[in-house]
Amino acid sequence: MRLNACLAAMPGGYLFGEIGRRVRAYEPGAPRPIIHLGIGDVSQPLAPAITEAFVRAAREMGTPQGFHGYPPEQGYPFLRQAIVDADYAPLGVRLDPDEVFVSDGAKTDTSALPELLAPDARVAVTDPVYPAYVDANAMAGRLGRHENGEWSDLVLLPCHPGNGFVPELPGRQVDLLYLCYPNNPTGTVLTRAQLARFVEYALETRTLILFDAAYKAYITDPAIPRSIYEIPGAQQVAVECCSFSKSAGFTGMRCAYTIVPKALTGEVDGRSVSLNALWARRVACRQNGVAYPIQRAAAAALSPEGRAQVDAQVRAYLDNAHRIVRTLQGAGLEVFGGIHAPYVWLRTPEGHSSWDFFDLLLHEAQVVATPGSGFGPAGEGHLRLTAFNSAERTQEALDRILAVLR
Amino acid sequence: MRLNACLAAMPGGYLFGEIGRRVRAYEPGAPRPIIHLGIGDVSQPLAPAITEAFVRAAREMGTPQGFHGYPPEQGYPFLRQAIVDADYAPLGVRLDPDEVFVSDGAKTDTSALPELLAPDARVAVTDPVYPAYVDANAMAGRLGRHENGEWSDLVLLPCHPGNGFVPELPGRQVDLLYLCYPNNPTGTVLTRAQLARFVEYALETRTLILFDAAYKAYITDPAIPRSIYEIPGAQQVAVECCSFSKSAGFTGMRCAYTIVPKALTGEVDGRSVSLNALWARRVACRQNGVAYPIQRAAAAALSPEGRAQVDAQVRAYLDNAHRIVRTLQGAGLEVFGGIHAPYVWLRTPEGHSSWDFFDLLLHEAQVVATPGSGFGPAGEGHLRLTAFNSAERTQEALDRILAVLR
Repeated sequence: MRLNACLAAMPGGYLFGEIGRRVRAYEPGAPRPIIHLGIGDVSQPLAPAITEAFVRAAREMGTPQGFHGYPPEQGYPFLRQAIVDADYAPLGVRLDPDEVFVSDGAKTDTSALPELLAPDARVAVTDPVYPAYVDANAMAGRLGRHENGEWSDLVLLPCHPGNGFVPELPGRQVDLLYLCYPNNPTGTVLTRAQLARFVEYALETRTLILFDAAYKAYITDPAIPRSIYEIPGAQQVAVECCSFSKSAGFTGMRCAYTIVPKALTGEVDGRSVSLNALWARRVACRQNGVAYPIQRAAAAALSPEGRAQVDAQVRAYLDNAHRIVRTLQGAGLEVFGGIHAPYVWLRTPEGHSSWDFFDLLLHEAQVVATPGSGFGPAGEGHLRLTAFNSAERTQEALDRILAVLR
Repeated sequence: MRLNACLAAMPGGYLFGEIGRRVRAYEPGAPRPIIHLGIGDVSQPLAPAITEAFVRAAREMGTPQGFHGYPPEQGYPFLRQAIVDADYAPLGVRLDPDEVFVSDGAKTDTSALPELLAPDARVAVTDPVYPAYVDANAMAGRLGRHENGEWSDLVLLPCHPGNGFVPELPGRQVDLLYLCYPNNPTGTVLTRAQLARFVEYALETRTLILFDAAYKAYITDPAIPRSIYEIPGAQQVAVECCSFSKSAGFTGMRCAYTIVPKALTGEVDGRSVSLNALWARRVACRQNGVAYPIQRAAAAALSPEGRAQVDAQVRAYLDNAHRIVRTLQGAGLEVFGGIHAPYVWLRTPEGHSSWDFFDLLLHEAQVVATPGSGFGPAGEGHLRLTAFNSAERTQEALDRILAVLR
């Protein structure tokens, strides 16, 4: 059997796997418990309204009247309608529930959506970037060769303090452009005008934008768009991936959704083809949807009661982020993001590479961060901290980091 | 944006989508309630031991101590160990938990596993066959052109009464051979010697076998292998996909697992490469695992108490299957399968195509079956009935069918 050479040639392990290995190697001899500000996993339990709906639906599954078999591949109508009503209508965005596809995770969708495109589709990402976008496309053979830490066919759009973390438009024609705002890993956002520039570009060049809005719940300023569909024309060029993971603490529940508007078309041999229809066909063939009790729990997160509870959780994480920003800025570090996002991006002190500073914080402060270079070449010399731990542990981690910096 | 021409050129809808459309069009004017013996969805609620474990884990998610965030991508160790101990050790098959990959469905895995292979990998399937195998490979561009209802690059291995539903070996070299036993849709099985012939062939020709054992719980004769790994050497050539859907009534829960043995290697540029390592890399990059409460429920299905309860459910479905076989044979129909499987495969009465007979049963008996031609060219002139309804509804469906046949 002849194997996938691109998959076999993948460099190193997945970033968070490598971090896990270093932590496991160090942890047994650590002088005090390690504090995790690394992987973006939440720490607060499910909110009461969500737990209650989840437990009720779990019980239903054990009864003849309440048992649910195969879910609709695209998601239950009750959840798709709730998403349209609770997440989009308040923004003035009108969507049809048939434009909503419920899935088991934004990672699943952001890595599978490129399959809508031609096999030799050209891909652009911001740099630094969530590594799963790049790895999934590399495995599928869309990125060419890996040389000197870069993919020959991947277009990188660097984001750094010099351009205020606002990427340039791609310098050459691409088929697919990934944008994630609020950004992972930098925690920065785009204003309406900055995002509109990308939509205009995509309309002019017929480029598909994959807009990852997994962190939209962290935006507190109405001037910053929560959805790309707040920009006129975006429904003709963009799919949008959202998740309950960071808004409702669903990292362990696995429920997300992707919007594929009916107005969105691409080309096959000069013909115009609906991406909504193609994605529906692909979804029906390749998966069997999300468990009924999980979808009931997700719908509860969108109810008025659930919403109030998860908003309080998000505010607690934002308080952590703001505290990290204030504290590290006070210590003289250059710090970015962390205002409308659960991620803080900091420049490593002079002379430290990303992995050097990661190892230093692990070994001296017993704090796990994420090395910026793991997110792309422009991430070198930076580190990502997450706001998902408790207020107490976050404060203790900051105290330890300050002690190391002194 | 240039789209995936293979996906855009997919013929028709997914089989069960087309059946759903015909049923929805007919149902409003139907003279009595429709009975579904079509799609293979279970009807009994979750067993008590499973529901209890599921509800307990759902409650845990709402507590600070019991909350679980991101699951391990490959599955929780407690579930992978339970699978090794409960599903394989009793068969004399020794597996390491690292060879078990928990996922959200066998459909997800059977359609994604070809991504381990070279982009131009040649694929073989039995005919008739579960359509998702074919569609997933067609969308990914592995099957060539679709002409006169057949794919130019797909190798079909016909199964029919003439060969006792035992496929021939592929007539030309392929990289991947799908085998599903107990078979969907024909309900037939392979003896140990018949399966061993395929393993020998795969060892000689270095072919990857994707063995779909989703229906193994329906085998009651120990002489018939439940796992391909009961055949010596199979760990060098086969992956095995299993599911809790039909063994434990998990169609609405979404939990399955795939075995990728460490002894299994393929070739990249003449080098030998581990498929287990490649699949682990792919899984870590493209998904985030299965919800903790769902995995707890799955583990409960493998506990002694849960096992006894789900075995009773399986016996009830098997009783239905045996009743369908006896009744339709008694009415003079040619009937296959249905002994070690929840599926019965019958030859349509003289002069009826598969879809003709499907429409006849829908309109005259208000019974939904699945037309055999939807499973491939060799399925024409046949129909699949499933045993997943209640005993009462199954009996009523049979009474109605007999009335139509008279």
